[in-house]
Amino acid sequence: MINDFDFRTTCDISGFLKEEIRSIVLYKSDVKDSDIVLDINCGVGEISTEFSKLAQKVYAIDESEQAATISQENIRKHGNIDKVEIINEDELSAIEKIENFDIGIIKAKKDNYIEVIFKVHEKINSKGRIVILTNILDFEVNIVNELSQMNYNPKITQINISNGILLNKGIKMESQNPMTIISIKKR
Amino acid sequence: MINDFDFRTTCDISGFLKEEIRSIVLYKSDVKDSDIVLDINCGVGEISTEFSKLAQKVYAIDESEQAATISQENIRKHGNIDKVEIINEDELSAIEKIENFDIGIIKAKKDNYIEVIFKVHEKINSKGRIVILTNILDFEVNIVNELSQMNYNPKITQINISNGILLNKGIKMESQNPMTIISIKKR
Amino acid sequence: MINDFDFRTTCDISGFLKEEIRSIVLYKSDVKDSDIVLDINCGVGEISTEFSKLAQKVYAIDESEQAATISQENIRKHGNIDKVEIINEDELSAIEKIENFDIGIIKAKKDNYIEVIFKVHEKINSKGRIVILTNILDFEVNIVNELSQMNYNPKITQINISNGILLNKGIKMESQNPMTIISIKKR
Amino acid sequence: MINDFDFRTTCDISGFLKEEIRSIVLYKSDVKDSDIVLDINCGVGEISTEFSKLAQKVYAIDESEQAATISQENIRKHGNIDKVEIINEDELSAIEKIENFDIGIIKAKKDNYIEVIFKVHEKINSKGRIVILTNILDFEVNIVNELSQMNYNPKITQINISNGILLNKGIKMESQNPMTIISIKKR
Repeated sequence: MINDFDFRTTCDISGFLKEEIRSIVLYKSDVKDSDIVLDINCGVGEISTEFSKLAQKVYAIDESEQAATISQENIRKHGNIDKVEIINEDELSAIEKIENFDIGIIKAKKDNYIEVIFKVHEKINSKGRIVILTNILDFEVNIVNELSQMNYNPKITQINISNGILLNKGIKMESQNPMTIISIKKR
Repeated sequence: MINDFDFRTTCDISGFLKEEIRSIVLYKSDVKDSDIVLDINCGVGEISTEFSKLAQKVYAIDESEQAATISQENIRKHGNIDKVEIINEDELSAIEKIENFDIGIIKAKKDNYIEVIFKVHEKINSKGRIVILTNILDFEVNIVNELSQMNYNPKITQINISNGILLNKGIKMESQNPMTIISIKKR
Repeated sequence: MINDFDFRTTCDISGFLKEEIRSIVLYKSDVKDSDIVLDINCGVGEISTEFSKLAQKVYAIDESEQAATISQENIRKHGNIDKVEIINEDELSAIEKIENFDIGIIKAKKDNYIEVIFKVHEKINSKGRIVILTNILDFEVNIVNELSQMNYNPKITQINISNGILLNKGIKMESQNPMTIISIKKR
Repeated sequence: MINDFDFRTTCDISGFLKEEIRSIVLYKSDVKDSDIVLDINCGVGEISTEFSKLAQKVYAIDESEQAATISQENIRKHGNIDKVEIINEDELSAIEKIENFDIGIIKAKKDNYIEVIFKVHEKINSKGRIVILTNILDFEVNIVNELSQMNYNPKITQINISNGILLNKGIKMESQNPMTIISIKKR
């Protein structure tokens, strides 16, 4: 397991997923050592780092150059960089080029999130797992509605984590912002 | 109602209670216009401000001079300063001198919190309401245990509030830290 | 204050608002004793009960006959029934007939929720407060978007309450389901 | 991954850990395929089931005969029963007999929880991970205080999960009760 503070982060790149969220993403992805993983909007690479220790191969995709650079650094330090291909390119064209993958992790951050989900769903292997993260309610509602129309019954989980800080006088709880995870398994 | 941003706050004084928490404190206090209120560890005076609009009289107690000053300013601006007596003194000796009150609001912040609760309980009028706020788990457990031993069955409520921020792309939720409210009515 | 268990409830009528939620609704409504209040989808009447103790007049509206009956019973027992007019009629036609009100509390439960909000907004007095409750994410997103298009910047609060149950071995926390409150003040 | 509804549960055995909590326990345990795991108060065996798929060996300990029986059934159906030894015995004497283990998962449910933690800590291999689950605040505070006195700085995480239920009108969130996880790595 990797501590949150082990990752190099930066204010310029939002959406870093903390330990508990990463745990749940890993679990919902049902990752096996033969799996090929797409990490879309990889940010500082925390998800790719985790999967690089468990899967066969990871594609870490982010159109930001800074994200690509920090991701590489984090994966190298805490994961298995040999298994990771970092693709510093627009998500849609990046996904288009990848022919074989079993797991798609999508941080829904930009306006093209529905298109990205469709593209991942279209190309992912049968029985592949798609795990979508968002902290925007509008995105959540739209994603669930789109998936419902495709006759999926997505799992929807909102996670509120508070961490205990040990002060002299006792334990003080501090909240993280809520995160929602939506997941399906491709038919 | 008073918006959180209407209050002048300062990093030097912790424990400011936000709108939703103030609402619940007011409700649990069952305040009537004949009530006399003690606001212990009044901080920036947000609770005294609220009660000054609803009760007969409020004693705002804080041993910090800065707290007393800011409280006065906030109550003057948003409440009814004529009804409030600000007591810039150690809590225990302040409470000792007050002979008649119906509501005790206690921010449990310092090590003497149990003593303060006992003193308030001893002096508050029969059928008086005591509402205790804490974000320290150890305090919460100790307070509940002490009240149980006095044969009270306190109400215990942990409140997790997230506020929606309206971004261009949609609603983003941001969490406040959890707050616990423990309340009893004196027999 | 009224305890949750004081209200008669029934499985047939959903949407009962617990103590902490009622507190926050009261606060956000900024109720004064001269105010006239609309309680739309009043359910078992818990909101009308509260406002009947603080406002000048309350219209409790619900198209369900059972809701109207239980509301009357609850208001009679715990509030001030003389101030309340129970209207057992479709919301939209009920609102249409009321000419003067300052506060609109809306439980968004049925598909016509946007129409109801528009109607309340159209008819409510200037500077009136509209407080909307929902536990459906799609409703929340739509409501906020509609209000934004009317150039409002609504307050959005998601409330997660856990109540402490005092067992022999200690305090166990039990969660209520989350509730979202959206509020505006009419320009 | 195993769905919550895949496990056979029963009202007689409390403390079933849902998907998201199991995810976080697995992550915090940092399990490797050479690890030997103690699952103390195994309940219906959900934790042993998970670890049986990832670790070398699992001891599932519960003094309830019914728990032992259901655990066996669940592990057989969803895990790898060949790796699991079910010990239907008092926790303390069960732990006493096990000489070599790397991970201790403890559901703190009974009054002997501190003794159990001490015993696990005493016997676990160096660098072993202890992950403790509780929903009793008093237990949480006592555990953290005991661990602090042993010069540990435990990680404390309170997890509030809400699951989205897809209704015709939209997504409704339903809350699970909060769960706290306390974890250390043996020095």
